[in-house]
Amino acid sequence: MSAHPSSQYTRRLARHVLSYRDAELPAAALTVARQCILDWFAVTLAGLEEPVARLLRDEVTPGSAGAATIVGTSIRCAPADAALVNGATSHALDYDDVHPLVGHPTVAVLPAALAVAEAQGRSGAELLRAFVAGYEAAAAVGTLVMPSHYDRGFHSTGTVGSFGAAAAAGLLLGLDEAQMATALGLAGTQAAGLKSMFGTMAKPLHAGKAASNGVLAARLAARGFTAHPALLDVAQGFVATQSDGPGEGIEIAPPGERVVGTLFKFHAACFLTHSTIEAVNDIRRAHSFAAEDIAAIDLHVPAAHLGVCNIPSPMTGLEVKFSLRHTAALAARGDDTAAIGTYSDRCARDPALVALRERITVHGDLPPRAVAEARIAMRSGTVHVGQVDVSVADTDLGRQGERLTAKFRSLAGAAVGEGRSERLRARIAALGATETIGELVTLA
Amino acid sequence: MSAHPSSQYTRRLARHVLSYRDAELPAAALTVARQCILDWFAVTLAGLEEPVARLLRDEVTPGSAGAATIVGTSIRCAPADAALVNGATSHALDYDDVHPLVGHPTVAVLPAALAVAEAQGRSGAELLRAFVAGYEAAAAVGTLVMPSHYDRGFHSTGTVGSFGAAAAAGLLLGLDEAQMATALGLAGTQAAGLKSMFGTMAKPLHAGKAASNGVLAARLAARGFTAHPALLDVAQGFVATQSDGPGEGIEIAPPGERVVGTLFKFHAACFLTHSTIEAVNDIRRAHSFAAEDIAAIDLHVPAAHLGVCNIPSPMTGLEVKFSLRHTAALAARGDDTAAIGTYSDRCARDPALVALRERITVHGDLPPRAVAEARIAMRSGTVHVGQVDVSVADTDLGRQGERLTAKFRSLAGAAVGEGRSERLRARIAALGATETIGELVTLA
Repeated sequence: MSAHPSSQYTRRLARHVLSYRDAELPAAALTVARQCILDWFAVTLAGLEEPVARLLRDEVTPGSAGAATIVGTSIRCAPADAALVNGATSHALDYDDVHPLVGHPTVAVLPAALAVAEAQGRSGAELLRAFVAGYEAAAAVGTLVMPSHYDRGFHSTGTVGSFGAAAAAGLLLGLDEAQMATALGLAGTQAAGLKSMFGTMAKPLHAGKAASNGVLAARLAARGFTAHPALLDVAQGFVATQSDGPGEGIEIAPPGERVVGTLFKFHAACFLTHSTIEAVNDIRRAHSFAAEDIAAIDLHVPAAHLGVCNIPSPMTGLEVKFSLRHTAALAARGDDTAAIGTYSDRCARDPALVALRERITVHGDLPPRAVAEARIAMRSGTVHVGQVDVSVADTDLGRQGERLTAKFRSLAGAAVGEGRSERLRARIAALGATETIGELVTLA
Repeated sequence: MSAHPSSQYTRRLARHVLSYRDAELPAAALTVARQCILDWFAVTLAGLEEPVARLLRDEVTPGSAGAATIVGTSIRCAPADAALVNGATSHALDYDDVHPLVGHPTVAVLPAALAVAEAQGRSGAELLRAFVAGYEAAAAVGTLVMPSHYDRGFHSTGTVGSFGAAAAAGLLLGLDEAQMATALGLAGTQAAGLKSMFGTMAKPLHAGKAASNGVLAARLAARGFTAHPALLDVAQGFVATQSDGPGEGIEIAPPGERVVGTLFKFHAACFLTHSTIEAVNDIRRAHSFAAEDIAAIDLHVPAAHLGVCNIPSPMTGLEVKFSLRHTAALAARGDDTAAIGTYSDRCARDPALVALRERITVHGDLPPRAVAEARIAMRSGTVHVGQVDVSVADTDLGRQGERLTAKFRSLAGAAVGEGRSERLRARIAALGATETIGELVTLA
């Protein structure tokens, strides 16, 4: 106990979140934060017509006093409702960013920040700060509970994410330290979401609920609601009931240090297929060949991935996203694995791809978090080897920005047209100026 | 595994809930269900001015399209919001009913049923059926996870209660079996609430969230939302992540059998003080005496109660509610332990009560769930002994009804006046006739 004095994590985290009000955020952190926001708008606009997005829009009652906008529409509703719909919509395609301490951080945190920033008439600079604060608050909670929390079956995007949503919303609402601790407590006692729901609409719902619960938590704290002041510390609190934590205790990093660790998705498939796809891409780019030239491909991945994305003979587009063999075949042929439309039922049945995937063998023979390896044996006898680990964030932020801009143009352009998406992109790139969030979301 | 075939609990429960549509409910079950509803209106109207109720009313945006009423007001809003506010308000005083398989069943289930019944224009008879179905669905989930779920730190009113809320709302929405399984899944993956929040506004918030999450779950299922069809069965589902269950498997009782086990609160203090209060009351009624005649009182209770309600020298009215010594002193003097106003800061400092409680000793020397015992030693040398166990439901429903009517008249009468409360009481007593729920809530 002396190494981890009780009732300090929650209060320390609350104080840390408030420090973002005046913190000098490193330029790299602000760059990545803008990239997160750009990428969020890309996947949100692309997800607008997904069934989960439509059903939730239908459910929300547009209120005459609604102060927040459902992105991509002209519907205005209560901030918590806007956060619910925007959060679920942005996770509908499962094409959004990743941080190992949270899961999918931006889809939980940004919708909460956007809704409250719009309702409170905050600036782009304030939104950016609140987003980074919320993102990194969630990551700090992650240091207490991950990975055991996730391993036990909890969908951390929905649970850990709710703390981040509350922190971001709370900063925008001007909470003091005690109120922030209350908001974190109210977020934690509402936090929910089970991994066993993966593959259904409930998965994106978790992201929306995290955002919405965070907004409610922060707004109630601002009104004077009470909650246990130390939910991260107390016996049978969030950490104790839902993880093996707190381990070595909370690890609070300097502002901006965690957001630069964001991992972006550049392929519209399960994240655990990405290292393999990129390893195959690297080989194909270095040694151009036709699919027919390939005798066999051996894929080596961490054993745990087999349970997630190793559907050997997918029958549908959705199943293709969880098939190491099929996605590797797509990459080997040079198909566009970034395009959502690639993952169709027709693609699952494509005779040439099916013939190629039959020559691919998956080996779950690597330890956890190892670098994926692809070995492509050509009919000529040559064997090409590639290794990629997408679980390490890109340090070349310029290159990352270019890739995200291309992704944004493809997804947002298709959803709202090239002109509007380009104006939106320019706005996000300049975020920090004096414009209000209302202008931003109206443009989207 | 063969004793508990997988993927059967959720589906069996969904089918069972649908059976309430045509089930012949025993007269005793309908009587107790009406008593639950009467008692719910009593504690809800009495709780209207509690801070948690006011803050949540302020938070909800009255919608022009709002189809459900916040009880005791003329505010209409979305059904999920009405369920949130009504649920939290009804649990604000912690004076509502209890079932050991759920916690506080009615505050989670009835607000969901009321909101959906009003929005759908259902009758009193349909409300009654849905309420009993939801209540007993929650109890069935309780057979899978209780008591380990509660012992681990989860506030079952908020978690197990959400299944009941979804079931009640789903029945009123006319869900089919697959949709009902989806609604139960969506309820379970939203279910949250930690016991470490007890003593704060978050505790009643949990009841409101259970009701609200249940409404959302059922409405989304009706719209065609998807979820894992067997959340009570699947690996890392609700049961596996948050309990030691499923033990012997789900125990589904015939319709009406569980609701008659409802325990009502007749003292406005912590439920674990009630056996002691009633044991002292029994002695006082049998042997009239003055407080000054008492030499000493020894209270024997289960050891586990000491951690919940044994504040030896309470300083505030709230602390009095969790003080076995002080509540026993109140009962020994013949004070009205049913009146909310009794539990004041002044009462905590009352010199005569303080002097009496100093002569009271609490012994946590009984096993769990044992009958509480009070031994009152008079200055004359006589010792009176009383034993009561309020954890067994009253089988004399007539007597129970009279006690609840007295409680209702006292609480609701003070809140909305004698005339209106009497009309409301008559309406609830006649529930099952043709009137709509809109008329009922408008009257309240």
